[in-house]
Amino acid sequence: MSTTEHTNFKPLKAIPLRQVTIQDPFWSARERNVIGTVIPYQWDALNDGIPGAEPSHTIENFRIAAGDAEGDYYGMVFQDSDLGKWLETVGFALSKERNPELEKLADDVIDLLGRAQQPDGYLNSYYTVKAPGERWTNLRDNHELYCAGHLMEAAVAYYEATGKRKFLDIMCRYADYIGTVFGAEAGQKRGYDGHPEVELALVKLYQASGNRSYLELSKFFVEERGQQPHFFDAEIREREALQGASGKKKRTYDYFQAHLPVKEQTTAEGHSVRAVYLYSAMADLAVEYGDDGLKEACRTLWNDTVGRKMYVTGGIGSSAYEERFTVPYDLPNDRAYTETCAAIGLMFWAQRMLQMEKDRKYADVMELALYNGVLSGISLDGKSYFYVNPLEVWPDTANFRNDMHTVKVTRQPWFGCACCPPNIARLIASLGQYVYSAGEDERELYVHLYVGSKAGVELAGVPVQLTQQTNYPWDGQAELQLSLQQPADLTVCLRIPGWCRKWTVSVNGAETDAGEPVNGYAKLTRTWQDGDRIELSFDMPVELMHSHPNVRSNAGKVALQRGPIVYCLEEIDNGANLQDLAIASDAQFDVNYDAGLLGGVAVLTGVGSRSVIPAKAEGILYGTRPFERAAAPVKAIPYFAWSNREPGEMTVWIRSS
Amino acid sequence: MSTTEHTNFKPLKAIPLRQVTIQDPFWSARERNVIGTVIPYQWDALNDGIPGAEPSHTIENFRIAAGDAEGDYYGMVFQDSDLGKWLETVGFALSKERNPELEKLADDVIDLLGRAQQPDGYLNSYYTVKAPGERWTNLRDNHELYCAGHLMEAAVAYYEATGKRKFLDIMCRYADYIGTVFGAEAGQKRGYDGHPEVELALVKLYQASGNRSYLELSKFFVEERGQQPHFFDAEIREREALQGASGKKKRTYDYFQAHLPVKEQTTAEGHSVRAVYLYSAMADLAVEYGDDGLKEACRTLWNDTVGRKMYVTGGIGSSAYEERFTVPYDLPNDRAYTETCAAIGLMFWAQRMLQMEKDRKYADVMELALYNGVLSGISLDGKSYFYVNPLEVWPDTANFRNDMHTVKVTRQPWFGCACCPPNIARLIASLGQYVYSAGEDERELYVHLYVGSKAGVELAGVPVQLTQQTNYPWDGQAELQLSLQQPADLTVCLRIPGWCRKWTVSVNGAETDAGEPVNGYAKLTRTWQDGDRIELSFDMPVELMHSHPNVRSNAGKVALQRGPIVYCLEEIDNGANLQDLAIASDAQFDVNYDAGLLGGVAVLTGVGSRSVIPAKAEGILYGTRPFERAAAPVKAIPYFAWSNREPGEMTVWIRSS
Repeated sequence: MSTTEHTNFKPLKAIPLRQVTIQDPFWSARERNVIGTVIPYQWDALNDGIPGAEPSHTIENFRIAAGDAEGDYYGMVFQDSDLGKWLETVGFALSKERNPELEKLADDVIDLLGRAQQPDGYLNSYYTVKAPGERWTNLRDNHELYCAGHLMEAAVAYYEATGKRKFLDIMCRYADYIGTVFGAEAGQKRGYDGHPEVELALVKLYQASGNRSYLELSKFFVEERGQQPHFFDAEIREREALQGASGKKKRTYDYFQAHLPVKEQTTAEGHSVRAVYLYSAMADLAVEYGDDGLKEACRTLWNDTVGRKMYVTGGIGSSAYEERFTVPYDLPNDRAYTETCAAIGLMFWAQRMLQMEKDRKYADVMELALYNGVLSGISLDGKSYFYVNPLEVWPDTANFRNDMHTVKVTRQPWFGCACCPPNIARLIASLGQYVYSAGEDERELYVHLYVGSKAGVELAGVPVQLTQQTNYPWDGQAELQLSLQQPADLTVCLRIPGWCRKWTVSVNGAETDAGEPVNGYAKLTRTWQDGDRIELSFDMPVELMHSHPNVRSNAGKVALQRGPIVYCLEEIDNGANLQDLAIASDAQFDVNYDAGLLGGVAVLTGVGSRSVIPAKAEGILYGTRPFERAAAPVKAIPYFAWSNREPGEMTVWIRSS
Repeated sequence: MSTTEHTNFKPLKAIPLRQVTIQDPFWSARERNVIGTVIPYQWDALNDGIPGAEPSHTIENFRIAAGDAEGDYYGMVFQDSDLGKWLETVGFALSKERNPELEKLADDVIDLLGRAQQPDGYLNSYYTVKAPGERWTNLRDNHELYCAGHLMEAAVAYYEATGKRKFLDIMCRYADYIGTVFGAEAGQKRGYDGHPEVELALVKLYQASGNRSYLELSKFFVEERGQQPHFFDAEIREREALQGASGKKKRTYDYFQAHLPVKEQTTAEGHSVRAVYLYSAMADLAVEYGDDGLKEACRTLWNDTVGRKMYVTGGIGSSAYEERFTVPYDLPNDRAYTETCAAIGLMFWAQRMLQMEKDRKYADVMELALYNGVLSGISLDGKSYFYVNPLEVWPDTANFRNDMHTVKVTRQPWFGCACCPPNIARLIASLGQYVYSAGEDERELYVHLYVGSKAGVELAGVPVQLTQQTNYPWDGQAELQLSLQQPADLTVCLRIPGWCRKWTVSVNGAETDAGEPVNGYAKLTRTWQDGDRIELSFDMPVELMHSHPNVRSNAGKVALQRGPIVYCLEEIDNGANLQDLAIASDAQFDVNYDAGLLGGVAVLTGVGSRSVIPAKAEGILYGTRPFERAAAPVKAIPYFAWSNREPGEMTVWIRSS
């Protein structure tokens, strides 16, 4: 596995964002919310204009770095990345519709970045303002390349949306400079960032600019990681010689995914966001270089992540301490960390694995994370956020026990460490690029997600327009219509979701035998005519989900899922002490769409049981007789929508009686 | 409730320790272990002579204070109390059998205390060595009176065992001095210690010395607690004026049980050890002063503690953060704090409530804590200790998750904060005083605990010798024999344990109708003859214990209990992933005494079920079908004996299927 082998991959390619328009009852409102509300709100946040929110100082830091203002740097060392994510979101927004006012705002801040850029191309407000002589002295802890990466991603998005090169050029200059600092040549640093991000960003920068040196630099960073002698040790020695101190407390290498060379890593370890950002870059490089060893490492890491360390919501990283993976099957619900950014990063990685492997299983996880562990991170109004996404909350203790101090019962307006809010904004704004792919022989059109949309793509020279209409995720119907200038031989590959046991596909009203799905995709190959219509129908019953028995915290419990949506119980609907509520192993639930609830959600209602607590039981904690139980109504709402009403208890996993 | 009302209590009185000799298959070995092994071991610990253990420096601190040595103070501010508890244990040991060598050691260290005592009577090594000008400037945080209290308790025990007055005189001098510093007179401090202890110690000092001013001082401390304007605030202001800083971060008053005057307190709050030490003193004063308001406050606090905040093991204080009570029914098993000292303190309080109220319910809790949450704190060899006593352990995560950093999987040889080891030693060494009481009219002889022993007591002038033989807790038989110099009219009051549903009592071989127990005590009133024999037989089936449904962490689970012994499952007997193991709601268990196991324990064996995990389930975390289950053997051992073999998983609460 440690040698590089080359295979001719023919990966899928996402249909670029600017060619996809979301027109969807579920997602359009969320997209509009991001563009119309979240982008301005987060701009205010970056300018410290949100009353009651933790200050950001991000723009001011750049103004000081540019010489436009005087003052001290304030914030985390990675504050620059918040602007990167915001600008990337703006880029995604502009790719849908140009907006002169927003573009002016972005251009002005890009000008500011230009002024803050140093003559040699360096661009980082923390070091420029606070420690100008100390560049590249603490790669392990100080996120210097991480910030560069987010600005690179933003520059690519902005360039692709607007065609304007200024930001792209700024970031290419910075990348060129980084390329002089890092490398295997004498006098260069054989190092890499403690927080992976620049690696995947450099791949994007290469793809946008065509400059292959950025891809090579990404490969260098990924391949150096975890090599011996260890860069972080050498760096500490240099820093001690220079500054007389080694900086923050030493963490173990696995926290940084730097415990082994990446091809030798077989288990997901350490900080979960760092992990999935790295694995995303590894998948990119596996494809770009046709590297079988890297591909196999990605598969192994994937299986460990989703097969042993993922919550039913698609959340990952179960421990608040170091925001990290712990041991297999350690998935406590009340102390779940499951950072919003980690679920987003899992989507990034899943999409890349999907393009590489063309296997539904990656799309299933991408979809699961999207509708649950990602979407729970933002309130319905777009103005408050969860950093941590527990699967069980008892507010009385969450506010009390120090061992759950990271768990919040309500979403927060902003964070001192504000990585999640702009991350979820850019994810929603870029959703279009997760829906479709074009296939290897250029005649395959893949549908991964069922999201109402229009997509335009050229397959082997044939322009194809696809219109998708659906009420997903609330029902399992989707209709796809092709617009063609002339009949075309194409294969339409339709994802049959992993959660679906029964489905039909019709073409122009006639049910069609699509044959056995290939890697989970029903493949319809024919000479398609303009106006051809595909109708999909996925059975979407309420399922009682069971955990692998090794997940101790879910022993004897079930979760409710319907389609891609994982449900939860809230106190407001079910009363307090949700752990006492139990449902039978064959419980049936009614599904009703409630347009007036939580922005419109399908609600599950059924009957479970609860203990009958006689008055004489008050003050008696333990006894030899079980309490009698009586029927009790159960009402479940989608997990992503929890905590949008009165704060209270919540649980995803429900006792099975 | 805030006014003091007086009632003529006729409380029970414990039969003093020197009049009770333990001769018991279960306890004698433990008592011998404490006297023969633990006392010397802990003496070594106080002298920093245990390789690999955290240093103590306790004796050295006193040597420096006495001018016998030079050096700096080292350790917690309350290091003195460790010597107090050790000397108290020595006192208890000597009350059983004088031991010249041990007595010499104690006398020497008492001489050292005499040399360390300041001319005005003050005796505290921390302030004497480290901050001689700052006495009484931080009552809230620095345990000055707490340390005094432990030395007072030791002095009383040593005096009662040996008749030597030196230590008692030292502590009376110190108490006299304290009485000049604190009080309601002008120029005196209207204060009290952040950690209650001196209050109950002063009651003992009063009882041993006959000097009622100590009782009055205890009453002053208890009644001042929580009054407004708040002493801790005044103290901070004075300290700021004096030292320019306010000391440690301010905690809320309830941490110190100082949020309200004690008679207005209705719920158990704050640091759990502090709480039960205070409540013990409140019960003492309620009896001494016949104070109905204090008695009612004790009852209310008791009901809240044992009815809403106690583990099934008798452990209390469920949160590591501030070692405290949290909210009702918040009793997580894996993050149980349940400090050994808190269970010991609960025994102290329970005994006082029992003497005051003559109600079995207090003896039940005293017994429950003794055999479970207290005894789990010490290893079978007496040389290692749990500070924290969880009810569920998964070592892989306990060593990994920061949110369970206080949980240890194996007992430790010593602690930097070493309150628990000497506390459990003194508890075991003084067990004799918990077994019997003499009743109000001096003709009632109460038997609270079934522990093989001989006790001598004079009831209204009639000397009575009682010999108890039992194999408790492994079976429910006990035989009591009376030795009388002449026939005597007495009432023998026999506790019918709360866990027992069926029992018989015989006198001289003939089953006797003892009538309905009074407050849980079967009362046998007759003219007893020398040699009369009482045989008790308590049915002791294995019980499946259920929690109140409000205890979320035990929903759907049962615990095994037999007699007073709570059982647990260990990985070494049952394999890993104990949460998957389930037992039926009507599961039957065999009971077998295994003399070779864990020092001799009754083992429970039965059949439960476990998931069958097919190979194809590897790497699949969630699915729609439950796993099949197959019969699996279940073997339970007493909770107190866990972690005396190979380290591994443990659980008290078991899934009920």
